[in-house]
Amino acid sequence: MEQINIGMIGGGTVGSGVFRALEKNSALMTARLGVKLKVAKVAVKAFDEPRPYKIPVATMTTDWTTVVNDPKIQVVIELMGGTGLAKTVVLAALKLGKPVITANKALISKCGPELFAAAAKNNTNLYYEASVAGGIPIIKTIREALVGNRFTQIYGIVNGTCNYILTRMKNERAEFAEILGDAQKLGYAEAEPSLDVDGYDAMHKTHILASLAHGFWVDEKKILVEGIRSISQTDIQFAEKLGYTIKQLGIVKAAGAGKSEKVQISVYPALIPQQHVLANVNDVFNAVFVRGDIVGDTLYYGRGAGKDATASAVLGDIADAATDLVNGTPRRVPAFVDYGRRASVMPASESVSQFYIRLGVQDKPGVLARVAAIFRDNKISIASVVQPENPAAQPNVPLIIMTHACKEASLQKALKRIARLSEVKAKPVLLRVEHFE
Amino acid sequence: MEQINIGMIGGGTVGSGVFRALEKNSALMTARLGVKLKVAKVAVKAFDEPRPYKIPVATMTTDWTTVVNDPKIQVVIELMGGTGLAKTVVLAALKLGKPVITANKALISKCGPELFAAAAKNNTNLYYEASVAGGIPIIKTIREALVGNRFTQIYGIVNGTCNYILTRMKNERAEFAEILGDAQKLGYAEAEPSLDVDGYDAMHKTHILASLAHGFWVDEKKILVEGIRSISQTDIQFAEKLGYTIKQLGIVKAAGAGKSEKVQISVYPALIPQQHVLANVNDVFNAVFVRGDIVGDTLYYGRGAGKDATASAVLGDIADAATDLVNGTPRRVPAFVDYGRRASVMPASESVSQFYIRLGVQDKPGVLARVAAIFRDNKISIASVVQPENPAAQPNVPLIIMTHACKEASLQKALKRIARLSEVKAKPVLLRVEHFE
Repeated sequence: MEQINIGMIGGGTVGSGVFRALEKNSALMTARLGVKLKVAKVAVKAFDEPRPYKIPVATMTTDWTTVVNDPKIQVVIELMGGTGLAKTVVLAALKLGKPVITANKALISKCGPELFAAAAKNNTNLYYEASVAGGIPIIKTIREALVGNRFTQIYGIVNGTCNYILTRMKNERAEFAEILGDAQKLGYAEAEPSLDVDGYDAMHKTHILASLAHGFWVDEKKILVEGIRSISQTDIQFAEKLGYTIKQLGIVKAAGAGKSEKVQISVYPALIPQQHVLANVNDVFNAVFVRGDIVGDTLYYGRGAGKDATASAVLGDIADAATDLVNGTPRRVPAFVDYGRRASVMPASESVSQFYIRLGVQDKPGVLARVAAIFRDNKISIASVVQPENPAAQPNVPLIIMTHACKEASLQKALKRIARLSEVKAKPVLLRVEHFE
Repeated sequence: MEQINIGMIGGGTVGSGVFRALEKNSALMTARLGVKLKVAKVAVKAFDEPRPYKIPVATMTTDWTTVVNDPKIQVVIELMGGTGLAKTVVLAALKLGKPVITANKALISKCGPELFAAAAKNNTNLYYEASVAGGIPIIKTIREALVGNRFTQIYGIVNGTCNYILTRMKNERAEFAEILGDAQKLGYAEAEPSLDVDGYDAMHKTHILASLAHGFWVDEKKILVEGIRSISQTDIQFAEKLGYTIKQLGIVKAAGAGKSEKVQISVYPALIPQQHVLANVNDVFNAVFVRGDIVGDTLYYGRGAGKDATASAVLGDIADAATDLVNGTPRRVPAFVDYGRRASVMPASESVSQFYIRLGVQDKPGVLARVAAIFRDNKISIASVVQPENPAAQPNVPLIIMTHACKEASLQKALKRIARLSEVKAKPVLLRVEHFE
């Protein structure tokens, strides 16, 4: 029986997770695939770096080039992270015609087209299932299983840290800063949480999903990115009263058809109906809701991060890479197909939705009248207004407004004027409402 | 560019759905796959049989052999249903070395090994994504994406009719017979509903999932099958009070490891915790919960039936078959790999779970004492008992008992004795409680 020798670059948390998962289930995978799989070499930062599972010393090296260049190594797995050295490693392996597997969402998001081109040029392939939504096989699903569908909507809860924080804020009635601090202590959030809570990690993943689903590499700069720092307990509780749950979402919506099709790509916290399947995805779990024009509504749910979930996705890619090597079909399912539909990316300003707005206003008569007049002037109709009583007689109180569906540009214009009112004391908080229509 | 010519056997609801879906999205699929796909011939029962989408008359024939035997036809799709002629058609195509795609769960469940052997012998393949859970790509997910996992638990809501009926019973506080009647009028249930409501359709699907996940063809007769006819409003409401929802499930649970591994395979309505992701899968939607030893908990959700969801799965199979034809790798991912782990199937009697029991008893003192004594004699401990008040002074009242976890054999023994008590007036209803532990 043929044996495929695998070289791994990165032997930390995820790397050792992959090593151990393959060790545990290699007999099972061999039985299923008819090929032996062996991690023959692992390049590590340091032999003694902390890792949850052991890697045999004899397998380790600190020189990645000896792994990539070893003629016995047939598949290279990049698990070091970052977009610097990781890119060098991936390109070096591809140039040698070796298939590469990566879990690196930042790298794919930033350098996708260059890496895919290198894979094509060298008649090999790049596999990146683990880069989006961890253990959920969303890349394979969009690329293969649902290949007969035009993707009209994709909504992903793709950042576990944000979902964990929002879930705890909801359950414990606590504010963002408090939960973030605790999440950092517990290891669910990084010391520098910006990548997660400001939406950039979700942007990388949404970028990859959008590009794959629509067949052209989206310009990263055209993606609207908003994080969850501005969400307060007030928002969560008012959303709840109105029948909604707040979730941080990566969103890919297609409108129009054919040459006039436009795709809107965004990452932001949104109010979604409590009955929607995504509303019940809690804690660190991820889920991707995919609507296809043939299949209708589907959802894929699982752990979006962590050494084991990521390892499962990497093992799936190893199986594909090994099968392709054995069959001599390295480009059977190319990493990315740019099929030139080149739907234009619709700026958020053109999109139409319902909005939730929280203002911090002085508690005195006439404020609502002034705010309402500005909405009227911008032809935005208000669905409901809530002005909680102010028993504590605080100087500033929240004023919550739900609009009917309107163009975002009109709303932003109105909000600018509202923010300048003397009675408005804090930066308005704006959240979109998603109805999955 | 290469063109793959497809022959379809069956041009009714599903067949015309596939025809129309491919017509709609063939340009998109060609762009993605680099190959043209054409349904060149369709064998139908009658040219004028009712179908939701049109099939051109020139494409139709009533003689399936002219489709299968046509040397230009490279892929055969069987969408006629049943296990008689459908089997003849599938075997005829496989014998000609042509890959076959089918949505026929009954056929795969009944004749899987024979069909897989025929595919292997003729160096071709059999694709059956659409046979389980409609548009949800659960076959590809278990076979490819999660190939690095041992599957410790699979719980599927795989029969849309049952889920629709149970959802409406819960929402409308109505009894089974009433909702079934209405579902039949609305087309959500067949005039002869037994295949669905008695669990056989779910058994076919669970059988396929269990066999695929565990690498040996399970003996159909070893699957415990129970339907939902005995579920009453009383059960639904008591389950709710206790924090549970009743769902009809296909269940594949593995216990032990290596040679002593046992797999329990069953179809029955069960009480599941209201917070579990499966509890919120409603109406005709299907979902499959898969726990892998590496990936952890995952869930796949979508429409389990209907012409369009089924067409999406068939299109995915067409893409795989076409890719395999173009690459000359017909056996790249074999339909089924029997890897001989041959875990034994555990009879339901050996399984341990918590039970919900509803008795119909005479409303007189001492009944509970007699029932409790029988449980005690069988070493089953009772978690809670509910005896609703009987304001109407009816002769028979429900007595609801929740046990702690115990062996099913002990429980069945106790229940037999209880059923013989003179105070017990109706056949006891037994439901299992699933905790996903």
